Amino acid sequence: MDAAEFRKRGKEMVDYVADYLEKIEKRQVFPDVEPGYLRPLVADSAPQDPESFEDVFKDIEKIIMPGAASPACTELETVMLDWLGKMVNLPKEFLAEKDGQGGGVIQGSASEATLIALLAARTKIIRQVQSEKPELTEAEIMGTLVAYASDQAHSSVERAALIGAVKIKSVPSDDTFSVCGSALKKVLDEDKAAGLIPFFFCATLGTTSCCSFDKLLELGPICNKENIWMHIDAAYAGSAFICPEFRHLLNGVEFADSFNFNPHKWLLVNFDCSAMWVKKRSDLIGAFKLEPLYLQHHHQESGLVTDYRHWQIPLGRRFRSLKLWFVLRMYGVRGLQEHIRKHIRLSHQFEHLVLQDERFEICAEVVLGLVCFRLKGSNELNEALLKSINDAKKIHLVPCHLREKFVLRFAVCSRTVESTHIKFAWQHISQLATDLLKTWEHNHHQQ
Amino acid sequence: MDAAEFRKRGKEMVDYVADYLEKIEKRQVFPDVEPGYLRPLVADSAPQDPESFEDVFKDIEKIIMPGAASPACTELETVMLDWLGKMVNLPKEFLAEKDGQGGGVIQGSASEATLIALLAARTKIIRQVQSEKPELTEAEIMGTLVAYASDQAHSSVERAALIGAVKIKSVPSDDTFSVCGSALKKVLDEDKAAGLIPFFFCATLGTTSCCSFDKLLELGPICNKENIWMHIDAAYAGSAFICPEFRHLLNGVEFADSFNFNPHKWLLVNFDCSAMWVKKRSDLIGAFKLEPLYLQHHHQESGLVTDYRHWQIPLGRRFRSLKLWFVLRMYGVRGLQEHIRKHIRLSHQFEHLVLQDERFEICAEVVLGLVCFRLKGSNELNEALLKSINDAKKIHLVPCHLREKFVLRFAVCSRTVESTHIKFAWQHISQLATDLLKTWEHNHHQQ
Repeated sequence: MDAAEFRKRGKEMVDYVADYLEKIEKRQVFPDVEPGYLRPLVADSAPQDPESFEDVFKDIEKIIMPGAASPACTELETVMLDWLGKMVNLPKEFLAEKDGQGGGVIQGSASEATLIALLAARTKIIRQVQSEKPELTEAEIMGTLVAYASDQAHSSVERAALIGAVKIKSVPSDDTFSVCGSALKKVLDEDKAAGLIPFFFCATLGTTSCCSFDKLLELGPICNKENIWMHIDAAYAGSAFICPEFRHLLNGVEFADSFNFNPHKWLLVNFDCSAMWVKKRSDLIGAFKLEPLYLQHHHQESGLVTDYRHWQIPLGRRFRSLKLWFVLRMYGVRGLQEHIRKHIRLSHQFEHLVLQDERFEICAEVVLGLVCFRLKGSNELNEALLKSINDAKKIHLVPCHLREKFVLRFAVCSRTVESTHIKFAWQHISQLATDLLKTWEHNHHQQ
Repeated sequence: MDAAEFRKRGKEMVDYVADYLEKIEKRQVFPDVEPGYLRPLVADSAPQDPESFEDVFKDIEKIIMPGAASPACTELETVMLDWLGKMVNLPKEFLAEKDGQGGGVIQGSASEATLIALLAARTKIIRQVQSEKPELTEAEIMGTLVAYASDQAHSSVERAALIGAVKIKSVPSDDTFSVCGSALKKVLDEDKAAGLIPFFFCATLGTTSCCSFDKLLELGPICNKENIWMHIDAAYAGSAFICPEFRHLLNGVEFADSFNFNPHKWLLVNFDCSAMWVKKRSDLIGAFKLEPLYLQHHHQESGLVTDYRHWQIPLGRRFRSLKLWFVLRMYGVRGLQEHIRKHIRLSHQFEHLVLQDERFEICAEVVLGLVCFRLKGSNELNEALLKSINDAKKIHLVPCHLREKFVLRFAVCSRTVESTHIKFAWQHISQLATDLLKTWEHNHHQQ
C-alpha cells in the first residue's frame, strides 16, 4: 500500500471507528456466536496472491464483529497462526487445526517466547522427576536443572534462565558460529556425569551477531533421546522460511517442542507480533493454569475453547492477529516472498561491493539480509570506522563481536529499500574508510 | 473528544503518517539530541485543565520527532510516569525526576508488574542470604522463600510465585475482605518458626472480587521491619487516587517498595498501559541486567540514561507513553477526576436502587465503581439470575464468590455511561428477577 492509498484507507478506517462509537448502543453486549464459529468462515490457508483492502475490510463487519472481542480475538489468532505455520511448512503437530494437540500464539517478543518455553519445560521435568523420586522437593530438583544455548545465542535466553532460576550453560559454536551435535553431546555428558539434569536447549536459527544457524538435524535427535525440551528461536530468520529455497534452514524442526519467529521483524507486521508454536499445548497450560471463578466460563471444559491466558505471562490480550490477517491477505504469500527475496538479493549486492574492495573482509557467510564485515586491521580501526559512520548519521550500524573480532553489521530492513540505497550506503562507507585510513596511517607513522 | 472531532483529528493523523512516509528520506537516521533532552521541554506535571488536540499534536513534531524513537520513547515514559505519580501523590522516592533513585515504567499488565516485583524481591533476598550464609546454594535458599497475598488477591499473584518458583501463602482477609496487620503477623510468625524466609507481600487495593482494600498502614510497618518487599497491586482502584477525597485509600504507600495501577482500566488510556513505580530502580536492574555488545551504547555508564529493558520481561518496547501524554493533556487532571467521580456516583446510584428492593442485598461496601449484590436466597437462585441476565444480552455481569456466597458484580466502566444506563440496567435486572422468582417458587412448591 503506497502513501496515497494509505491516506484513503486510513480515513475510511477513522470513519468506521467513529460510526462504531456513534452507534454502539445498537450493538449487543455479548455475541451470539458459538465457540469455533470463525474457522469455517475463513480460508484454510493464506492466499497466494494479494487481495484488495476492500475485500479484507468487508470481512471485519462480516466475520469479526459478530464475534466481538471474544471469541473473535482468540479464534482469529489460532487460525492466523495455522496460516503462518503452513506458510513456513511446519510439521502438522504444531498446528491447532480443528482438533490438534499443538497450536500457535502471539507473544510480545522472542524473549517472552523463550521464557514461556523454558518455564513449560521446567514444570514438565519437575513433575517427571518428582513422579520418579517423590522424596525430592521442587527446590532440590531445580538446583540440578540445566538449560543450554549456543555461545552465540541472544542474551534473552540467559535472561529466561535467570528468571526461571535454573542454571544455563553456553555450548561452544564451531567456526561457522553454529552449534553442532557433538558440542552439545559433550556438555550433556559432562553435566549428567556430575549429577545434573539437562532439561532445555534453545537452538538459534539466525543468531543476532552474524545470522548463523545451529545444526537442528544433529541437535534434535540428541534432545529427543535425552528428554530435553528443544525450543527454536528463529526471531529474525524465521520469516525467510516462507520461501521454499530457504525452508531447508528449518529442517529438523520436527524434533522441536516449540518454535518461534517474529513477523514484526521481517514480515511487514507492525511491532509487536511474535509467533510461537508448541507441539503439545497441554505442556504450556500445565505450567500456568489457575482458574479463579471470575475467569471461568461455561465452555472451559468443552475442549472447544483456547484460553490463551494460560499460554503467556500477562492475563490481558490485544487483538494482534488482525495485523496478520490484513498483511497476509493484502500481500499474499507471493508478495511476502518477493519482499524477503529482495532483501536477500540486496544484502548479496552489498556483500559483493565489500568483496570488491581489498581493504575489507566479510566475517560470516551471508545467508539472509545481514552482512558482517570489517576493515582488515585492528579492532580499534573498526571501532573508529563505526564511529565515523554513525556520527555522520546517513546510515546507522550496530556492531558485534565474533570471537575476538570487532565486526560491523549491515542489515537490510526497510520495507522501501532499493538497490540505490545499497549503493549509496557502500559509497558512503567506502569514502569514510578512505578518510579514516589517511588519518590512521598518518598517526601510525608518527608514532 | 466526540465522534465528530475524532473524525477530523483521526484524518489529520492519517495525513501526518502518510506525509512522514513520503518524506522519510529527508529525515536523519539518528537523532542529534543528547540524553535528558526531553524533560526540560515539557511541563513538570500534568495540566489541571484540558489542552486542545492541536496543542498536543504540535508538540509531536517539536518535542518527539527530534528525539525519534530513541531516546524520546524512553524519556517521555519517565516523565509521564512522574506526572502520573504526582497525580496520585506518590511519595517523592517513587519519582525519577532529575536524579531520583526511583521511577516509573509502563508494563503490559498488572500481572507482569507483580511478577517483576516478585523477581526483583527474590534476587534481593537471595543475595542478602548468600552474603550472610555463603555455604547455601541459590536452590537451597529458594526452597525456603515464601511470598504472601490476601485470600482475595488476584490469581496473577499466585501465578507470579509459580513462575518465580517460590512458595506462596494466602493471608486470611477479615469480614470486610481486607488483610489486616495481625493476620499477616500471625502467618509470618508461624513460617519463621518453621525456618522459612518471608520475602514478598503483595497488598491489594481494590480486589477483583469486591474492591476491598488491604490495610496498608498496618501491613507496611510489618513488612519494613521484617525485611519483606511490599508490592501494592491497585490495578483497578489506583486511578481513583487522583481525586483528593479517595487518596486516603493509598495511605501507607510510603512503606511499599513498588506500586502498580492500570491507567488502561479506568483512566481512559487504551489497553495496554499498566503503570509501575519502584523506590529503588537498582533493585529491578539488579534482577535482570545482562549487557551483550549489540545492546551496549556509549551513554550506558553515564547515569543519564534509563534502560527500560532491565525493568521488564520483553526486550522490545512500544511507545505507549504517547497515549498517556495525549490523555493527560486533553482531559487535564480535572477532566479525569470528573470521569472517576461520575462513575463512583453512578455505582452509588445503582447501590441505592438495590437497597430499595427488599429481595436483594449488597454484599460488600461500595467504595468505587463496583457493586456486589445478590438476591437474598440460595447460590443456585443467584446463578440462575446471572444466567438469565447474561442470556438476555442487554448487559453483561461477571460473578464472584465472597466466602461461600455466589455474588453478582455490577461494574461501571464505560466512558460514555450515564444515569439513564444505570436505571435501565436496574429495571432490567429487577424484571428478570421477578420473572425468575415466579418460576423458581413454582418449581420449589412442586418439589
